[in-house]
Amino acid sequence: RASTQPLGLENHGVVGGLGRGSASPLGPSWVTSGGPSRGDGGESLLNLAVFSDVATRLLLCVFTKDGLEGDQGPVAEIELDPKKNRTGHVWHCSLCVAAGRHKDLFYTYRVAGVGSGPGAAAASGAGSSEVAEQRPGVIFNNAEEGEGGPPVRDFLLDPYAVAIASRARWGHLAPEVPRGGGDGRGYSSITDRFGPCWAQHACCLPSLEDFDWEGDRPLNLKMEDLVIYELHVRGFTQHPSSGVEHPGTYLGLTEKLDYLKDLGVNCVELMPVNEFNELEYYEVSPANGVYRYNVWGYSTVGFFAPMARYAACLGEGGDLGRTAEVVREFKEMVKACHQRGIEVVLDVVFNHTAEGNHQGPCLSFRGLGNRVYYMLAPQGEYYNYSGCGNTVNCNHPVTREFILDCLRYWVVEMHVDGFRFDLASILSRNHSSWIQEDHPLSSSVGSAAREARGPSGSATAPQAGGVAGAMAANPVAQGLDEYVHDEDQPTGKPLGDPPLLRAISTDPILKDTKLIAEAWDCDGLNQVGSFPHYGGRWSEWNGIFRDNVRNFIKGSDGPWAGTFAGAICGSPDVYGNPEPGEGDWWGNNDGGMWRGTRGPSASVNFVTAHDGFTLADLVSYNSKHNEPNGEQNNDGEQHNNSWNCGQEGKTEEKSVIKLRHKQLRNFATALFVSQGVPMLVMGDEYGHSKGGNNNTYCHDGDINYFQWNVCERQKGLVRFFKKLIRLRKNNPSLRQSAYMDGSRIQWHGEKPGEPDWTDTSRFVAFSIKGDVESNDLYIAFNSGHSQVVAELPILESGCWDATVDTSKPAPYDFLESDDMLGEVEVMVAKEQCRAYLDDGFYPIGPYSCVILKRVLSKDESSELED
Amino acid sequence: RASTQPLGLENHGVVGGLGRGSASPLGPSWVTSGGPSRGDGGESLLNLAVFSDVATRLLLCVFTKDGLEGDQGPVAEIELDPKKNRTGHVWHCSLCVAAGRHKDLFYTYRVAGVGSGPGAAAASGAGSSEVAEQRPGVIFNNAEEGEGGPPVRDFLLDPYAVAIASRARWGHLAPEVPRGGGDGRGYSSITDRFGPCWAQHACCLPSLEDFDWEGDRPLNLKMEDLVIYELHVRGFTQHPSSGVEHPGTYLGLTEKLDYLKDLGVNCVELMPVNEFNELEYYEVSPANGVYRYNVWGYSTVGFFAPMARYAACLGEGGDLGRTAEVVREFKEMVKACHQRGIEVVLDVVFNHTAEGNHQGPCLSFRGLGNRVYYMLAPQGEYYNYSGCGNTVNCNHPVTREFILDCLRYWVVEMHVDGFRFDLASILSRNHSSWIQEDHPLSSSVGSAAREARGPSGSATAPQAGGVAGAMAANPVAQGLDEYVHDEDQPTGKPLGDPPLLRAISTDPILKDTKLIAEAWDCDGLNQVGSFPHYGGRWSEWNGIFRDNVRNFIKGSDGPWAGTFAGAICGSPDVYGNPEPGEGDWWGNNDGGMWRGTRGPSASVNFVTAHDGFTLADLVSYNSKHNEPNGEQNNDGEQHNNSWNCGQEGKTEEKSVIKLRHKQLRNFATALFVSQGVPMLVMGDEYGHSKGGNNNTYCHDGDINYFQWNVCERQKGLVRFFKKLIRLRKNNPSLRQSAYMDGSRIQWHGEKPGEPDWTDTSRFVAFSIKGDVESNDLYIAFNSGHSQVVAELPILESGCWDATVDTSKPAPYDFLESDDMLGEVEVMVAKEQCRAYLDDGFYPIGPYSCVILKRVLSKDESSELED
Repeated sequence: RASTQPLGLENHGVVGGLGRGSASPLGPSWVTSGGPSRGDGGESLLNLAVFSDVATRLLLCVFTKDGLEGDQGPVAEIELDPKKNRTGHVWHCSLCVAAGRHKDLFYTYRVAGVGSGPGAAAASGAGSSEVAEQRPGVIFNNAEEGEGGPPVRDFLLDPYAVAIASRARWGHLAPEVPRGGGDGRGYSSITDRFGPCWAQHACCLPSLEDFDWEGDRPLNLKMEDLVIYELHVRGFTQHPSSGVEHPGTYLGLTEKLDYLKDLGVNCVELMPVNEFNELEYYEVSPANGVYRYNVWGYSTVGFFAPMARYAACLGEGGDLGRTAEVVREFKEMVKACHQRGIEVVLDVVFNHTAEGNHQGPCLSFRGLGNRVYYMLAPQGEYYNYSGCGNTVNCNHPVTREFILDCLRYWVVEMHVDGFRFDLASILSRNHSSWIQEDHPLSSSVGSAAREARGPSGSATAPQAGGVAGAMAANPVAQGLDEYVHDEDQPTGKPLGDPPLLRAISTDPILKDTKLIAEAWDCDGLNQVGSFPHYGGRWSEWNGIFRDNVRNFIKGSDGPWAGTFAGAICGSPDVYGNPEPGEGDWWGNNDGGMWRGTRGPSASVNFVTAHDGFTLADLVSYNSKHNEPNGEQNNDGEQHNNSWNCGQEGKTEEKSVIKLRHKQLRNFATALFVSQGVPMLVMGDEYGHSKGGNNNTYCHDGDINYFQWNVCERQKGLVRFFKKLIRLRKNNPSLRQSAYMDGSRIQWHGEKPGEPDWTDTSRFVAFSIKGDVESNDLYIAFNSGHSQVVAELPILESGCWDATVDTSKPAPYDFLESDDMLGEVEVMVAKEQCRAYLDDGFYPIGPYSCVILKRVLSKDESSELED
Repeated sequence: RASTQPLGLENHGVVGGLGRGSASPLGPSWVTSGGPSRGDGGESLLNLAVFSDVATRLLLCVFTKDGLEGDQGPVAEIELDPKKNRTGHVWHCSLCVAAGRHKDLFYTYRVAGVGSGPGAAAASGAGSSEVAEQRPGVIFNNAEEGEGGPPVRDFLLDPYAVAIASRARWGHLAPEVPRGGGDGRGYSSITDRFGPCWAQHACCLPSLEDFDWEGDRPLNLKMEDLVIYELHVRGFTQHPSSGVEHPGTYLGLTEKLDYLKDLGVNCVELMPVNEFNELEYYEVSPANGVYRYNVWGYSTVGFFAPMARYAACLGEGGDLGRTAEVVREFKEMVKACHQRGIEVVLDVVFNHTAEGNHQGPCLSFRGLGNRVYYMLAPQGEYYNYSGCGNTVNCNHPVTREFILDCLRYWVVEMHVDGFRFDLASILSRNHSSWIQEDHPLSSSVGSAAREARGPSGSATAPQAGGVAGAMAANPVAQGLDEYVHDEDQPTGKPLGDPPLLRAISTDPILKDTKLIAEAWDCDGLNQVGSFPHYGGRWSEWNGIFRDNVRNFIKGSDGPWAGTFAGAICGSPDVYGNPEPGEGDWWGNNDGGMWRGTRGPSASVNFVTAHDGFTLADLVSYNSKHNEPNGEQNNDGEQHNNSWNCGQEGKTEEKSVIKLRHKQLRNFATALFVSQGVPMLVMGDEYGHSKGGNNNTYCHDGDINYFQWNVCERQKGLVRFFKKLIRLRKNNPSLRQSAYMDGSRIQWHGEKPGEPDWTDTSRFVAFSIKGDVESNDLYIAFNSGHSQVVAELPILESGCWDATVDTSKPAPYDFLESDDMLGEVEVMVAKEQCRAYLDDGFYPIGPYSCVILKRVLSKDESSELED
């Protein structure tokens, strides 16, 4: 702990000088090398390490809590010594923090360097801050101040920050500050530069307290046993009717876990919970006159940091000094989920960041390693496969390591059970392969390079053997601005063997972690069924299931009876091809990997998700109604395969309402009787409507809130979901790990064993053989407008018993006794069907589905009772 | 720190129970999460994490120092709970160690599992320990003991162990223990199983003390400025004449650093300093009746651990409880080197390990993840590209991460400046791509797999659209023993873009670290000039330089004049092709990478290295004389390009001795006037002879010891080396970063500008233009048996001045005044040449070389003195 310079930070709790620190691990960490003999006064040694390939100078900026709350600048800017505090491309140092003071201290970095931003190559040497400001990625810290205006003074977050302090309350703008900075030294904060939408932010020091996990660990449930519930942490309990103590927070969610457990869910998939800026747009929506929020949070600021305004200690307004407690609250939530047998899967957004395109703010990555962390074209233009302005350079070795470290952190430190990767296909794209010919010895890549390079001077060396040529080689003279890239593996090309996905798939720590891909991106790459899965490590959001089920249930002409049956089976056509056909290979064929054979659990089945219509809107709207988003209804998915059941939107028309009620239940039934992993989105179980808006990312209000009062009113539908989930749980035959063959499942039409797969077929029925744990089941979907009287398959013993019939009003739609339906009523209701069933028939009403269970016949059971 | 089970280790300094621990970081680490509030009694929390993909059970074995020294078993075997202490394939736990007790404690692991060893697949289910014993990789811990004999009880080292305790003194056998174990519970130590050559070993806990680096850091010298000295730590100071306080150790080397500094060396390349077992062969050499040692240490036991018997605290006999101090001594050595401007490069042996082939001991990797860490064929046979029994599976993701972690550790924690990778071409080979078809959902690889897999049951699903096939797929029924591998990328294939080498080359922490490849392996792969270098990150041991220089200097017919000139230029034919030709691509062409254009510093030039003849033997032997190695002279390199100068071996014949003296100096001159990075091997500067043995790895004696008394006697030769190195230092023109063109270097024959490149040419001369810092130089090599009177290139001003002439006896071979040669004598000697020089001629004797410097002529200098 040799100290080389006094820092003058004693008043703020930093003891002594700056230490050399260690390049590993990256990020902030408490050091133990001093052991028990260290820290007699209770002080702790903090190590900081950060990657930057562009920094020629790097400053550690120390903030205090008071300063941060007052939007003041740092109390100290400590310049690191590149000779002492740098190892390769990693800058590092250590600080000794006095006992109990770590919560008062925050940090950011500032770097001076060239080449980090768009056009940096051309601009290198220019160095004026005006140039720099036009190119936010180039962070000059002009030591000779005064020339050409104030220097740019971005404070950069540590990409490994475990918690980030910015605003102390959700959605509150920072005070307006005159642009240009007050002290003549340039910007004093990001607020100063980008206005009140960007609160000044800084990284917390890690907690020094142990968290009592009480023996908690990831649950390691089987993939095929999951019932996933997609939810938004704030939206789930923010509505006043939630009645929770901490609305809109991790703790609020915790208070409602018993509801989820009762519903039967055993996995929550949390929409982004990484630190993001809910006010990043800083504009008022013309549609409703309020701020356009980024409520959903698909715009990450800190990949290691849980969203601070989802923590009760901050979300309700509070003390920035408590930001590090955010981590504790997150852990409490995970522990509480696990205690109820519920896994936690995070929706992680590694495809882009909140730094946006060249006009976005410089928060962290852009300033530290623009060309490393982002996919850039030669002049610094951002590739935009994400549709959000930038694209993370996922397969670059440094970026790849960052993502791996991050995933491991969430598993090891936070105990999460898995990840859903937003626009995961971007993770399969080649990293930027453009290279700059700026080094006399740089090796060339691709033929373009070879052509671009001129003849290399005259060889004056011996000719004999032709081996001893002494040559001139000084490409520098040919200009710094010459870029080439690999034409065989160009930037952004989907790779056959993407290093990041291979690394994630084979990582020993992540081995039992659920990996779920949203297997497409915003540049038309669609890898559903062909996402690089490395021996079945990955499951996918199965968009094909969604489309097939929607098309069949709404009753369209087409191949939908057949494809619906495929969906029911767990999509073997997508995940289980026994032999690869043309087009079944992913990426290229070099790796020899093809998309089959996985099992049904590769398929995360869903009818709705946060993107697109809610289930209620799916049966209430033919078209989207996104006007409140302020983009002239141009945003959101155009192809919804929805049907309004006769009238667009809200209606008083009884027949329409009745039809919608049936369709909701038909969709639910299809979801939960299909092989694979069902996912429902929060609110669908009570018929949450967003009024036809299929892209509600920007609304912080009821449209995105779970309405507990409505949920209470819609007991019938909620009961139906709950019963279905229980039916699935009680019948392992509905959640098998391998595909079924003909000994297990049989397909029927109006007559047993005679299915109709024609384009006009509206009827799909099947029976599944049970086993010791499962009933035999007969399940039939009629998506036509006429009743189908179906002849039932003959049973060797026992008889079919009515269980589900969506043509009946709740609670008779599910014939099981509970507080809404007495045992006598169940018996009476079943008796109504007995006549049909005894004759081996069941009438399946228009737009309805039924589930029958094989039970012991009365005679058999009375015999047994003897 | 929830404790779940009392361990009963209080007497040994372990407080409380076993904690869950964290899966990250791997290896042993002290934990800080408790912070200052933790450890009121001074105790420290130790985290342990270890990868194993085969363990179904894992036991932490705790040893005490006394037990270890007494070759007793562990004081406790603590079984980890796979539900609590496992995350994915990483097992982990934590222990609380009382103050001051960490030096008394050691640990190993034992695992129970299947599938880790050769033939494990076939044997799985067999489970008898007899089977296991035949296949050392399969570590069964048969809980139902007593069936089929005692269970195998290998104690496995943590691959991340920072120090390893085994024998307390170099070369001392452990006490003989009756084979079979004493307590009926099986083997109690590795000594028990493999005899006294393998001392019982265990991992130390990391040190808790800070090391005072006094601001030390890697030196970051320019590659082209290095003068590398290859040395063996023990051999360098073990000879009694060294006179050091700590012979044969890191500290002993430290005591001799001033010698190296005086010699002019600025980089030591240490032959392996990773923990190895010097007694691993456990056999007596029939040739000399003493144990065959592994002295060189190319057989790593612990990749993070410095060789413990190279530390003074152990090497001289001592206390195993001091083993952790080994790390401190190593750091002292590095710091001392840096204080003298000497970099430290480690010879690292990642191509194989000490576990050998299927008959070798099970020390660590084999038991934890045989198929992960080693390249295996389907039935468990070890691939042997290393010639040492096994091959590290370098490009497997887990192994790759291990190697990267290891390199970073040596840089960050130990401050080493670089690495020389033994048989580095193995690092470019594909990892084992055989996979076992043992999982119903395993994805297939390669066409073999597809053919091997039969039709997958009858599809009974709908035919319409052909999309909804429900299938049977249960390859398990087809037998566990079915292996396939990727025919496009078979196991061991040299890769175009090897993931490990890419990762090392692009790692931010390793960015300024020297990377030197021994660019070949023992299966005939030779990548000199074509080793995957990722934009010039790698240099190579240039075996082509060695062969070319040897062939020219000994005076062979052939293209050697031309190739020798290429060597002088820094081998642009190897490293600097301006345009790639056929065969200039490495691996495949997919990555678009070709071997040029690097600069001269890609070439580590050497005439001799630890493998092969010493410089003295190179000029004294036509053939190798390896009989003492006990392999009937079959070992060692067959093609030495050596010449004994007329008589084989020792001689009294004056003319032969004189010729050898000249040749030694000719080689030295060629080495130090060549562009690139010169490397000499320890002892060559005084003419160390090994009696014609070119493979002395197994001799712990004078043959491998630096003989300081001889060095003292051979002052003349040592002086010549020293002067040459200084000449190189003072003339930047001899160590340029880019290749020279015709404006800088000109080639001559007997007449200026008329070089002779024919196959019979024995004369190569050239002049190099100086600059502000460098003299103009004229350098000529005559490898013929007649004198050459060379006409010198005409100078515009100044005149040529005699400096080096190897035909003259020392100290007149290098005309510079010092304690061996007075100024007057230098003047007189130079005066002898004046007549020739003034006439523009210099007579270059047979088998001699000369260096002339341009100096101001007498007139000019007197004018200047006016």
